[in-house]
Amino acid sequence: EQIVEAGMTVLLEKGFNGCGVQEITDCAGVPKGSFYNHFESKEALGAEIVERYAERSVRGVLADRSFPPIERLRLHFEALNERYIGFGFRRGCLLGNFSAELSDQSALIRARLAEVFAHWTKDLEAAISEAQAQGAIGASVPAAELAAFLLNAYEGALLRARVEKNRDAFENFMRVAFTKILT
Amino acid sequence: EQIVEAGMTVLLEKGFNGCGVQEITDCAGVPKGSFYNHFESKEALGAEIVERYAERSVRGVLADRSFPPIERLRLHFEALNERYIGFGFRRGCLLGNFSAELSDQSALIRARLAEVFAHWTKDLEAAISEAQAQGAIGASVPAAELAAFLLNAYEGALLRARVEKNRDAFENFMRVAFTKILT
Repeated sequence: EQIVEAGMTVLLEKGFNGCGVQEITDCAGVPKGSFYNHFESKEALGAEIVERYAERSVRGVLADRSFPPIERLRLHFEALNERYIGFGFRRGCLLGNFSAELSDQSALIRARLAEVFAHWTKDLEAAISEAQAQGAIGASVPAAELAAFLLNAYEGALLRARVEKNRDAFENFMRVAFTKILT
Repeated sequence: EQIVEAGMTVLLEKGFNGCGVQEITDCAGVPKGSFYNHFESKEALGAEIVERYAERSVRGVLADRSFPPIERLRLHFEALNERYIGFGFRRGCLLGNFSAELSDQSALIRARLAEVFAHWTKDLEAAISEAQAQGAIGASVPAAELAAFLLNAYEGALLRARVEKNRDAFENFMRVAFTKILT
Protein backbone atom coordinates (compact mmCIF):
# COMPACT_ATOMS: atom_id res chain seq x y z
CA GLU A 1 0.00 0.00 0.00
CA GLN A 2 2.81 2.41 0.93
CA ILE A 3 4.60 1.50 -2.27
CA VAL A 4 1.51 2.18 -4.39
CA GLU A 5 0.95 5.55 -2.72
CA ALA A 6 4.57 6.58 -3.01
CA GLY A 7 4.69 5.29 -6.58
CA MET A 8 1.71 7.40 -7.56
CA THR A 9 3.34 10.54 -6.16
CA VAL A 10 6.78 9.91 -7.64
CA LEU A 11 5.49 8.75 -11.05
CA LEU A 12 3.24 11.81 -11.33
CA GLU A 13 6.12 14.12 -10.44
CA LYS A 14 8.89 12.57 -12.48
CA GLY A 15 7.28 10.37 -15.11
CA PHE A 16 7.77 6.64 -15.47
CA ASN A 17 11.20 6.82 -17.06
CA GLY A 18 12.25 9.75 -14.90
CA CYS A 19 12.53 7.72 -11.69
CA GLY A 20 13.75 4.36 -10.51
CA VAL A 21 12.44 1.75 -8.08
CA GLN A 22 14.90 3.06 -5.50
CA GLU A 23 13.32 6.49 -5.55
CA ILE A 24 9.86 4.97 -5.06
CA THR A 25 10.93 2.80 -2.12
CA ASP A 26 12.83 5.73 -0.58
CA CYS A 27 9.68 7.82 -0.82
CA ALA A 28 7.65 4.96 0.69
CA GLY A 29 10.20 4.54 3.48
CA VAL A 30 10.69 0.82 2.78
CA PRO A 31 13.83 -1.11 1.75
CA LYS A 32 14.34 -1.44 -1.99
CA GLY A 33 14.36 -5.24 -1.73
CA SER A 34 10.79 -5.27 -0.40
CA PHE A 35 9.54 -3.84 -3.71
CA TYR A 36 9.97 -7.16 -5.48
CA ASN A 37 8.04 -9.02 -2.80
CA HIS A 38 4.99 -7.10 -3.96
CA PHE A 39 5.56 -6.25 -7.61
CA GLU A 40 7.26 -8.15 -10.37
CA SER A 41 8.56 -4.95 -11.95
CA LYS A 42 8.15 -1.18 -12.09
CA GLU A 43 5.84 -1.85 -15.03
CA ALA A 44 3.55 -4.02 -12.87
CA LEU A 45 3.41 -1.22 -10.30
CA GLY A 46 2.62 1.25 -13.10
CA ALA A 47 -0.33 -0.88 -14.24
CA GLU A 48 -1.66 -1.12 -10.66
CA ILE A 49 -1.33 2.65 -10.27
CA VAL A 50 -3.35 3.30 -13.45
CA GLU A 51 -6.29 1.45 -11.90
CA ARG A 52 -5.88 3.10 -8.54
CA TYR A 53 -5.68 6.55 -10.09
CA ALA A 54 -8.83 5.94 -12.13
CA GLU A 55 -10.75 4.69 -9.07
CA ARG A 56 -9.99 7.96 -7.29
CA SER A 57 -11.11 10.09 -10.16
CA VAL A 58 -14.06 12.39 -9.69
CA ARG A 59 -16.45 10.35 -11.82
CA GLY A 60 -18.88 9.82 -8.91
CA VAL A 61 -20.75 13.03 -9.62
CA LEU A 62 -21.56 11.87 -13.16
CA ALA A 63 -23.96 9.31 -11.71
CA ASP A 64 -25.46 11.56 -9.02
CA ARG A 65 -29.07 11.83 -10.09
CA SER A 66 -29.84 14.68 -7.72
CA PHE A 67 -28.51 16.99 -10.48
CA PRO A 68 -29.70 17.23 -14.11
CA PRO A 69 -27.26 15.42 -16.43
CA ILE A 70 -25.81 18.59 -18.03
CA GLU A 71 -25.11 19.92 -14.56
CA ARG A 72 -23.37 16.67 -13.63
CA LEU A 73 -21.15 16.96 -16.70
CA ARG A 74 -20.29 20.51 -15.76
CA LEU A 75 -19.54 19.59 -12.13
CA HIS A 76 -17.40 16.69 -13.27
CA PHE A 77 -15.14 18.80 -15.46
CA GLU A 78 -15.09 21.68 -12.99
CA ALA A 79 -13.91 19.30 -10.27
CA LEU A 80 -11.13 18.07 -12.55
CA ASN A 81 -10.15 21.64 -13.39
CA GLU A 82 -9.98 22.52 -9.71
CA ARG A 83 -7.82 19.50 -9.00
CA TYR A 84 -5.26 20.39 -11.63
CA ILE A 85 -5.34 24.10 -10.85
CA GLY A 86 -4.78 23.12 -7.21
CA PHE A 87 -1.59 21.34 -8.27
CA GLY A 88 -0.40 24.62 -9.81
CA PHE A 89 -0.69 23.16 -13.35
CA ARG A 90 1.95 20.63 -12.40
CA ARG A 91 1.87 16.85 -12.68
CA GLY A 92 -1.24 16.66 -14.88
CA CYS A 93 -3.28 13.51 -15.32
CA LEU A 94 -1.44 10.27 -14.73
CA LEU A 95 -3.52 8.63 -17.46
CA GLY A 96 -2.58 11.23 -20.05
CA ASN A 97 1.06 11.22 -18.97
CA PHE A 98 1.35 7.46 -19.20
CA SER A 99 -0.48 7.50 -22.55
CA ALA A 100 2.18 9.81 -23.97
CA GLU A 101 5.15 8.13 -22.33
CA LEU A 102 4.30 4.43 -22.32
CA SER A 103 1.84 3.58 -25.13
CA ASP A 104 4.67 2.16 -27.19
CA GLN A 105 6.80 0.86 -24.36
CA SER A 106 4.46 -1.23 -22.24
CA ALA A 107 1.69 -3.41 -23.65
CA LEU A 108 0.52 -4.06 -20.08
CA ILE A 109 0.11 -0.40 -19.14
CA ARG A 110 -1.30 0.49 -22.54
CA ALA A 111 -4.05 -2.15 -22.17
CA ARG A 112 -4.87 -0.89 -18.69
CA LEU A 113 -5.10 2.70 -19.96
CA ALA A 114 -7.44 1.63 -22.77
CA GLU A 115 -9.78 -0.05 -20.24
CA VAL A 116 -9.80 2.91 -17.91
CA PHE A 117 -10.50 5.39 -20.73
CA ALA A 118 -13.29 3.12 -21.99
CA HIS A 119 -14.94 3.14 -18.54
CA TRP A 120 -14.63 6.89 -18.23
CA THR A 121 -16.16 7.29 -21.71
CA LYS A 122 -19.08 5.06 -20.69
CA ASP A 123 -19.77 7.21 -17.63
CA LEU A 124 -19.76 10.37 -19.76
CA GLU A 125 -21.93 8.67 -22.35
CA ALA A 126 -24.56 7.73 -19.77
CA ALA A 127 -24.94 11.36 -18.65
CA ILE A 128 -24.97 12.68 -22.23
CA SER A 129 -27.49 10.06 -23.29
CA GLU A 130 -29.79 11.04 -20.44
CA ALA A 131 -29.49 14.71 -21.45
CA GLN A 132 -30.28 13.78 -25.05
CA ALA A 133 -33.40 11.89 -23.94
CA GLN A 134 -34.51 15.04 -22.11
CA GLY A 135 -33.79 17.19 -25.15
CA ALA A 136 -31.07 19.18 -23.34
CA ILE A 137 -28.44 17.96 -25.85
CA GLY A 138 -29.18 17.42 -29.54
CA ALA A 139 -29.26 13.80 -30.68
CA SER A 140 -27.70 14.31 -34.12
CA VAL A 141 -24.40 12.81 -32.92
CA PRO A 142 -24.59 9.63 -30.78
CA ALA A 143 -23.80 10.07 -27.07
CA ALA A 144 -20.92 7.61 -27.31
CA GLU A 145 -19.23 9.77 -29.98
CA LEU A 146 -19.69 12.97 -28.00
CA ALA A 147 -18.38 11.25 -24.87
CA ALA A 148 -15.18 10.00 -26.52
CA PHE A 149 -14.58 13.38 -28.14
CA LEU A 150 -15.08 15.18 -24.84
CA LEU A 151 -12.74 12.94 -22.90
CA ASN A 152 -9.99 13.30 -25.51
CA ALA A 153 -10.52 17.06 -25.73
CA TYR A 154 -10.20 17.28 -21.98
CA GLU A 155 -6.92 15.38 -21.90
CA GLY A 156 -5.64 17.69 -24.62
CA ALA A 157 -6.76 20.80 -22.73
CA LEU A 158 -4.95 19.55 -19.64
CA LEU A 159 -1.73 19.09 -21.62
CA ARG A 160 -2.05 22.64 -22.91
CA ALA A 161 -2.72 24.03 -19.42
CA ARG A 162 0.45 22.37 -18.20
CA VAL A 163 2.43 23.98 -20.99
CA GLU A 164 0.91 27.41 -20.48
CA LYS A 165 0.77 27.18 -16.68
CA ASN A 166 -2.53 29.02 -16.53
CA ARG A 167 -6.22 28.19 -16.62
CA ASP A 168 -6.91 29.43 -20.17
CA ALA A 169 -7.17 25.93 -21.66
CA PHE A 170 -9.60 24.82 -18.93
CA GLU A 171 -11.78 27.88 -19.43
CA ASN A 172 -11.63 27.39 -23.18
CA PHE A 173 -12.65 23.75 -22.78
CA MET A 174 -15.66 24.62 -20.62
CA ARG A 175 -16.83 27.43 -22.91
CA VAL A 176 -16.55 25.55 -26.17
CA ALA A 177 -17.67 22.15 -24.85
CA PHE A 178 -20.80 23.58 -23.26
CA THR A 179 -21.75 25.90 -26.12
CA LYS A 180 -20.85 23.73 -29.12
CA ILE A 181 -20.76 20.07 -28.07
CA LEU A 182 -23.16 19.64 -25.16
CA THR A 183 -26.03 21.55 -26.72
CA GLU B 1 22.37 18.60 -38.30
CA GLN B 2 22.94 14.84 -37.93
CA ILE B 3 22.52 15.19 -34.17
CA VAL B 4 19.23 17.08 -34.56
CA GLU B 5 17.87 14.46 -36.98
CA ALA B 6 18.97 11.55 -34.84
CA GLY B 7 17.69 13.29 -31.72
CA MET B 8 14.25 13.74 -33.25
CA THR B 9 14.03 10.05 -34.09
CA VAL B 10 15.33 8.78 -30.77
CA LEU B 11 13.35 11.25 -28.64
CA LEU B 12 10.14 10.38 -30.49
CA GLU B 13 10.77 6.66 -30.02
CA LYS B 14 11.95 6.63 -26.42
CA GLY B 15 10.89 9.90 -24.84
CA PHE B 16 13.20 12.52 -23.39
CA ASN B 17 13.95 10.66 -20.18
CA GLY B 18 14.01 7.28 -21.89
CA CYS B 19 17.29 7.89 -23.72
CA GLY B 20 20.68 9.41 -23.10
CA VAL B 21 23.02 11.60 -25.12
CA GLN B 22 25.07 8.49 -25.95
CA GLU B 23 22.09 6.88 -27.67
CA ILE B 24 21.51 10.01 -29.75
CA THR B 25 25.13 10.32 -30.84
CA ASP B 26 25.24 6.56 -31.59
CA CYS B 27 22.19 6.97 -33.79
CA ALA B 28 23.76 10.01 -35.47
CA GLY B 29 27.03 8.10 -36.00
CA VAL B 30 29.13 10.77 -34.29
CA PRO B 31 31.33 10.56 -31.19
CA LYS B 32 29.57 11.41 -27.91
CA GLY B 33 32.06 14.20 -27.19
CA SER B 34 31.00 16.08 -30.32
CA PHE B 35 27.52 16.56 -28.87
CA TYR B 36 28.70 19.21 -26.45
CA ASN B 37 30.44 21.15 -29.22
CA HIS B 38 26.97 21.84 -30.59
CA PHE B 39 24.57 21.74 -27.65
CA GLU B 40 24.98 22.81 -24.08
CA SER B 41 22.78 19.96 -22.86
CA LYS B 42 20.19 17.38 -23.88
CA GLU B 43 17.64 20.01 -22.84
CA ALA B 44 19.04 22.52 -25.35
CA LEU B 45 18.79 19.89 -28.08
CA GLY B 46 15.20 19.16 -26.97
CA ALA B 47 14.27 22.84 -27.35
CA GLU B 48 15.84 22.97 -30.82
CA ILE B 49 13.94 19.84 -31.82
CA VAL B 50 10.61 21.34 -30.74
CA GLU B 51 11.11 24.17 -33.23
CA ARG B 52 12.31 21.88 -35.97
CA TYR B 53 9.40 19.50 -35.48
CA ALA B 54 6.90 22.37 -35.65
CA GLU B 55 8.48 23.76 -38.83
CA ARG B 56 7.93 20.41 -40.52
CA SER B 57 4.34 20.16 -39.49
CA VAL B 58 1.67 20.11 -42.13
CA ARG B 59 0.37 23.62 -41.46
CA GLY B 60 1.12 24.83 -44.99
CA VAL B 61 -2.22 23.68 -46.32
CA LEU B 62 -4.04 25.90 -43.80
CA ALA B 63 -2.89 28.96 -45.75
CA ASP B 64 -3.44 27.51 -49.24
CA ARG B 65 -6.13 29.78 -50.62
CA SER B 66 -6.86 27.52 -53.56
CA PHE B 67 -9.22 25.63 -51.22
CA PRO B 68 -12.13 27.02 -49.19
CA PRO B 69 -11.14 27.46 -45.52
CA ILE B 70 -13.25 24.58 -44.19
CA GLU B 71 -11.63 22.30 -46.75
CA ARG B 72 -8.18 23.48 -45.66
CA LEU B 73 -9.01 22.64 -42.06
CA ARG B 74 -10.18 19.19 -43.13
CA LEU B 75 -7.07 18.58 -45.25
CA HIS B 76 -4.85 19.76 -42.40
CA PHE B 77 -6.26 17.29 -39.89
CA GLU B 78 -6.52 14.50 -42.45
CA ALA B 79 -2.83 14.93 -43.26
CA LEU B 80 -1.96 14.71 -39.56
CA ASN B 81 -4.12 11.60 -39.19
CA GLU B 82 -2.39 9.98 -42.12
CA ARG B 83 1.01 10.76 -40.67
CA TYR B 84 0.25 9.16 -37.33
CA ILE B 85 -1.60 6.22 -38.87
CA GLY B 86 1.46 5.76 -41.10
CA PHE B 87 3.59 5.42 -37.97
CA GLY B 88 1.31 2.56 -36.87
CA PHE B 89 -0.04 4.67 -33.97
CA ARG B 90 3.45 4.75 -32.52
CA ARG B 91 5.54 7.73 -31.47
CA GLY B 92 2.72 10.28 -31.57
CA CYS B 93 3.30 14.02 -31.70
CA LEU B 94 6.59 15.19 -30.28
CA LEU B 95 4.89 18.36 -29.03
CA GLY B 96 2.25 16.44 -27.09
CA ASN B 97 4.81 13.96 -25.77
CA PHE B 98 7.12 16.68 -24.53
CA SER B 99 4.15 18.57 -23.04
CA ALA B 100 3.29 15.54 -20.93
CA GLU B 101 6.83 14.62 -20.02
CA LEU B 102 8.66 17.93 -19.65
CA SER B 103 6.22 20.72 -18.76
CA ASP B 104 7.35 20.58 -15.15
CA GLN B 105 10.94 19.58 -15.76
CA SER B 106 12.24 22.09 -18.27
CA ALA B 107 11.28 25.76 -18.32
CA LEU B 108 13.17 26.11 -21.60
CA ILE B 109 11.29 23.37 -23.45
CA ARG B 110 7.98 24.37 -21.88
CA ALA B 111 8.38 27.95 -23.16
CA ARG B 112 9.24 26.67 -26.62
CA LEU B 113 6.17 24.41 -26.65
CA ALA B 114 3.93 27.30 -25.61
CA GLU B 115 5.23 29.40 -28.53
CA VAL B 116 4.79 26.62 -31.06
CA PHE B 117 1.24 25.84 -29.89
CA ALA B 118 0.42 29.55 -30.05
CA HIS B 119 1.57 29.73 -33.68
CA TRP B 120 -0.37 26.64 -34.62
CA THR B 121 -3.47 28.07 -32.95
CA LYS B 122 -3.05 31.31 -34.94
CA ASP B 123 -2.91 29.39 -38.21
CA LEU B 124 -6.09 27.48 -37.32
CA GLU B 125 -7.73 30.72 -36.21
CA ALA B 126 -7.03 32.42 -39.54
CA ALA B 127 -8.77 29.65 -41.49
CA ILE B 128 -11.71 29.52 -39.05
CA SER B 129 -12.06 33.28 -39.10
CA GLU B 130 -12.17 33.27 -42.91
CA ALA B 131 -14.85 30.55 -42.82
CA GLN B 132 -16.84 32.59 -40.30
CA ALA B 133 -16.67 35.66 -42.56
CA GLN B 134 -18.09 33.52 -45.38
CA GLY B 135 -20.83 32.18 -43.12
CA ALA B 136 -19.53 28.58 -43.37
CA ILE B 137 -18.90 28.49 -39.60
CA GLY B 138 -21.13 30.23 -37.06
CA ALA B 139 -19.64 33.28 -35.38
CA SER B 140 -21.20 32.77 -31.93
CA VAL B 141 -17.83 31.61 -30.52
CA PRO B 142 -14.71 33.62 -31.54
CA ALA B 143 -12.37 31.92 -34.03
CA ALA B 144 -9.49 32.07 -31.54
CA GLU B 145 -11.51 30.05 -29.01
CA LEU B 146 -12.51 27.44 -31.56
CA ALA B 147 -8.93 27.19 -32.78
CA ALA B 148 -7.47 26.59 -29.32
CA PHE B 149 -10.18 24.05 -28.52
CA LEU B 150 -9.59 22.19 -31.76
CA LEU B 151 -5.83 22.01 -31.34
CA ASN B 152 -6.16 20.68 -27.79
CA ALA B 153 -8.87 18.21 -28.82
CA TYR B 154 -6.61 16.95 -31.58
CA GLU B 155 -3.66 16.38 -29.25
CA GLY B 156 -6.02 14.49 -26.94
CA ALA B 157 -7.38 12.38 -29.80
CA LEU B 158 -3.84 11.48 -30.79
CA LEU B 159 -3.03 10.34 -27.26
CA ARG B 160 -6.13 8.16 -27.30
CA ALA B 161 -5.27 6.69 -30.70
CA ARG B 162 -1.85 5.72 -29.38
CA VAL B 163 -3.46 3.95 -26.43
CA GLU B 164 -6.05 2.16 -28.55
CA LYS B 165 -3.72 1.53 -31.50
CA ASN B 166 -6.48 2.11 -33.99
CA ARG B 167 -7.98 5.01 -35.93
CA ASP B 168 -11.19 5.35 -33.90
CA ALA B 169 -10.08 8.49 -32.08
CA PHE B 170 -9.07 10.17 -35.35
CA GLU B 171 -12.37 9.31 -36.99
CA ASN B 172 -14.23 10.47 -33.91
CA PHE B 173 -12.29 13.76 -33.95
CA MET B 174 -13.13 14.42 -37.60
CA ARG B 175 -16.82 13.57 -37.21
CA VAL B 176 -17.45 15.58 -34.07
CA ALA B 177 -15.19 18.52 -34.95
CA PHE B 178 -16.76 18.97 -38.36
CA THR B 179 -20.37 18.46 -37.29
CA LYS B 180 -20.37 20.28 -33.93
CA ILE B 181 -17.46 22.75 -33.82
CA LEU B 182 -16.72 23.83 -37.38
CA THR B 183 -20.34 24.54 -38.33
